[in-house]
Amino acid sequence: MLERVRIVLVNTSLPANIGAAARAMKTMGLAQMVLVAPKIFPSPEADTLSSGATDILAQARVVSSLDEAIAGCRLVIGTSARSRHIPWPLLNPRAAAAQAWAELPVGEVALVFGREDRGLTNDELHKCHYHVHIPTNPDFSSLNLAAAVQVLAYEMRMRSLEDDQVEAPFWGVDWDIDAAPAEDIERLFVHLEQVLVKVDFLDPENPRQLMTRLRRLFLRSRLDTVELNVLRGFLTAIEKSSKQ
Amino acid sequence: MLERVRIVLVNTSLPANIGAAARAMKTMGLAQMVLVAPKIFPSPEADTLSSGATDILAQARVVSSLDEAIAGCRLVIGTSARSRHIPWPLLNPRAAAAQAWAELPVGEVALVFGREDRGLTNDELHKCHYHVHIPTNPDFSSLNLAAAVQVLAYEMRMRSLEDDQVEAPFWGVDWDIDAAPAEDIERLFVHLEQVLVKVDFLDPENPRQLMTRLRRLFLRSRLDTVELNVLRGFLTAIEKSSKQ
Repeated sequence: MLERVRIVLVNTSLPANIGAAARAMKTMGLAQMVLVAPKIFPSPEADTLSSGATDILAQARVVSSLDEAIAGCRLVIGTSARSRHIPWPLLNPRAAAAQAWAELPVGEVALVFGREDRGLTNDELHKCHYHVHIPTNPDFSSLNLAAAVQVLAYEMRMRSLEDDQVEAPFWGVDWDIDAAPAEDIERLFVHLEQVLVKVDFLDPENPRQLMTRLRRLFLRSRLDTVELNVLRGFLTAIEKSSKQ
Repeated sequence: MLERVRIVLVNTSLPANIGAAARAMKTMGLAQMVLVAPKIFPSPEADTLSSGATDILAQARVVSSLDEAIAGCRLVIGTSARSRHIPWPLLNPRAAAAQAWAELPVGEVALVFGREDRGLTNDELHKCHYHVHIPTNPDFSSLNLAAAVQVLAYEMRMRSLEDDQVEAPFWGVDWDIDAAPAEDIERLFVHLEQVLVKVDFLDPENPRQLMTRLRRLFLRSRLDTVELNVLRGFLTAIEKSSKQ
């Protein structure tokens, strides 16, 4: 289904960005690239930056106008900076992916990306059903073109996987006692390992996965500082009582 | 709050990736970069690729071990390919951002990224409370390091904005009639403009925002093919009846 999404890049200047966009697409399972009057294409630099996604570049369609690029599409979503002269239906990337996903069973969808320096023109934006705005830092909105493709492609993939998503439970966050810092937890593991060896439970010659399993257990439990002190005290008590 | 997130890059080989990661961070409002034994840093290439996010590079901490990088953090999340010898609590990027966001009011959070070629070692992964897996295409999981930083930083930013998010309504997707394709809608607008001029409603010398507003109206309504034919018929009828 993700292969029905067209990524349309308008008047891209840098071949590196075309290559990096192809790589971003392929990592997320997208396949269709359409280039509207790219400055340079094909190019060895695009091939290099695609990092092996050369099939996407080889199959990319080059057209001379946005109209050609979006012909046959029933939903066209254009990337946009936030403020425009006339407001347009504006989605965040997640909502845009949801709209696109809902459309894919019945038709093709275009996600349109503008020039590195100036984005899409108003005329181009006005060919879009929706605009999508990646919510950048207002003080630094200089998102790389391939990074923008990565974010939208990622949201498409996340939407495609939504039924598989399982929210993880929260541990320890609403605790009344501070969570133990990483370095204290590391000291606990060092101490724990010494004690395990000392009591002959852990064979340093053949440790198997014992420490790994214990790490997973304690890290997963999100130890707080009091619990950590209790465990450290316990280990010290074991050492003192050990015959070795 | 996002400034309390530490982005930790372990043994990065390419200065370009450090620069592009700084850019990705800053676009999303993140500020703290920690570099564990980078191959080359600082470097002019990192500065160039940061595209102006040089403040992040200037403030980046360089340390010699992951332990130093995560000291003081109470939640450590490491990026990981999916399958590991022993399963670990594994989150997708969205759930990881939710965990991190819940932790930030009370402590610092580290998001840890591994080497370009081999990711994080098992020892490094075993210092993490959770692993996060960006759900790449199983056939092409070659995600660029800065792209991975971009995705996680984007999810952090989205989480920070969650209260502002408004889901857009769905139009036309469950319709029983096919949505009109983009090229037919363009023809409608050409026709409409001719008729607007013909009936003296649109002055070609002074068009103002009239077509823009009409485009927005019709695109927003997600015209289906029957509606489009009705409108075209209407325009033709107007032309026929016009005295001009």
